[in-house]
Amino acid sequence: MDKRNLEVCFSPAVFKLFENPGSIVVIIDVFRASSAICTAFANGAVAIIPVAEIEEAREFKRKGFLVAAERDGFVLDFADFGNSPFNFTREKVEGRTIAYSTTNGTQLIHKASSAHSVVIGAFLNISALCKWLTGQERDVVLFCAGWKDKFNLEDTVCAGAIGERLMASGKFSTICDSLHASMDLWSIAKTNPLAYIEKAAQRSRLRDKGLDDCIEFCLQTEFTDIIPVFMNKILKPLGK
Amino acid sequence: MDKRNLEVCFSPAVFKLFENPGSIVVIIDVFRASSAICTAFANGAVAIIPVAEIEEAREFKRKGFLVAAERDGFVLDFADFGNSPFNFTREKVEGRTIAYSTTNGTQLIHKASSAHSVVIGAFLNISALCKWLTGQERDVVLFCAGWKDKFNLEDTVCAGAIGERLMASGKFSTICDSLHASMDLWSIAKTNPLAYIEKAAQRSRLRDKGLDDCIEFCLQTEFTDIIPVFMNKILKPLGK
Repeated sequence: MDKRNLEVCFSPAVFKLFENPGSIVVIIDVFRASSAICTAFANGAVAIIPVAEIEEAREFKRKGFLVAAERDGFVLDFADFGNSPFNFTREKVEGRTIAYSTTNGTQLIHKASSAHSVVIGAFLNISALCKWLTGQERDVVLFCAGWKDKFNLEDTVCAGAIGERLMASGKFSTICDSLHASMDLWSIAKTNPLAYIEKAAQRSRLRDKGLDDCIEFCLQTEFTDIIPVFMNKILKPLGK
Repeated sequence: MDKRNLEVCFSPAVFKLFENPGSIVVIIDVFRASSAICTAFANGAVAIIPVAEIEEAREFKRKGFLVAAERDGFVLDFADFGNSPFNFTREKVEGRTIAYSTTNGTQLIHKASSAHSVVIGAFLNISALCKWLTGQERDVVLFCAGWKDKFNLEDTVCAGAIGERLMASGKFSTICDSLHASMDLWSIAKTNPLAYIEKAAQRSRLRDKGLDDCIEFCLQTEFTDIIPVFMNKILKPLGK
């Protein structure tokens, strides 16, 4: 069959240019939503419900759900914990459904919802993700979350790392300059992703808030084989 | 004084995030508008009037102006020539005012008009441009034209080349991931920009239309010292 199309979208603000009803959209928000979601499922969470509004998250708490919720790095008073991947320990999340409060993430999922499938991508699940994407007969859009509609480095180099593997499979072709740029940036970053990401704006923001303890963790690969997939407004591990 | 802020905007779709009334905006459209405009002034054009609508361009022709106008690579029947830099020869443009039909370019200039100044940047005028920008006490936004609101490689590596020079001056600082990405991509491209740009989508589009004879020309530096500046809806050489 014809090769499938692979593209990278750098910002939610331009995602409409990448809308493709037959495609699989991979949402990438390395610091920290994608990484936290992968960690939660790796530690046995059953489902994650993305929630946009604080009041909605509070309502889930009243109903007995675990609630992960923060704004600008501060855990909301009614929540069980914030959005760091380190919060989603097996002890806390195994067998539980989690309401995950994220204004940005919820908007991303909403924007991507016209696609055939929406999955979550991170360094943590990159091998399983790329193997699965290669086995599907569908176009793929790597959708970088960015930062307040701006381009960011960490999601882009992750897209580049995914792009490198998918292009190497021989199953994809592209005329997307953003993919070429992502792969070229990854070619620089790959020798030492932790050092490369030092200059990223989000690196500084997390450091300033004392939330940067998870950076190295978020950049590791081979952490989990789970691919979170979004269906009926809920994230679940693919195939479960 | 404090260092000035340097940022790169990858797409007209997100320029509002970079609006800054005190800044100098550098519009970069390497293939081919920025390069054509620099060439026209280098060859003695007096002024260039960016025109959005075809009917408006036709009206300028009736009034006796030179008109450069094409759509999708085809010269419009009433125009004197199309948008290739090679059309703007000294023989044709010296002492003349040119109506330049460009839907995209006109929109870019309009979007940027809230800034303190709007100038045109290209590889062709990079040295004079960077020297001038370094001498101003203003923030700078490098505004990549992109392609139909998408990121493109050629404008980005040009922004990276400009960024490299400005950052080396010690007068600028940044927390802009797009600038870091541009400079990193330029660090790969700079050993052979012509070879690097082979994979750019616009490279293929121009080849398909037989309009790619100007690629190598557009990538050269030190072609002109002129900095086109936009004032009162007209482009003129800075200082003239």
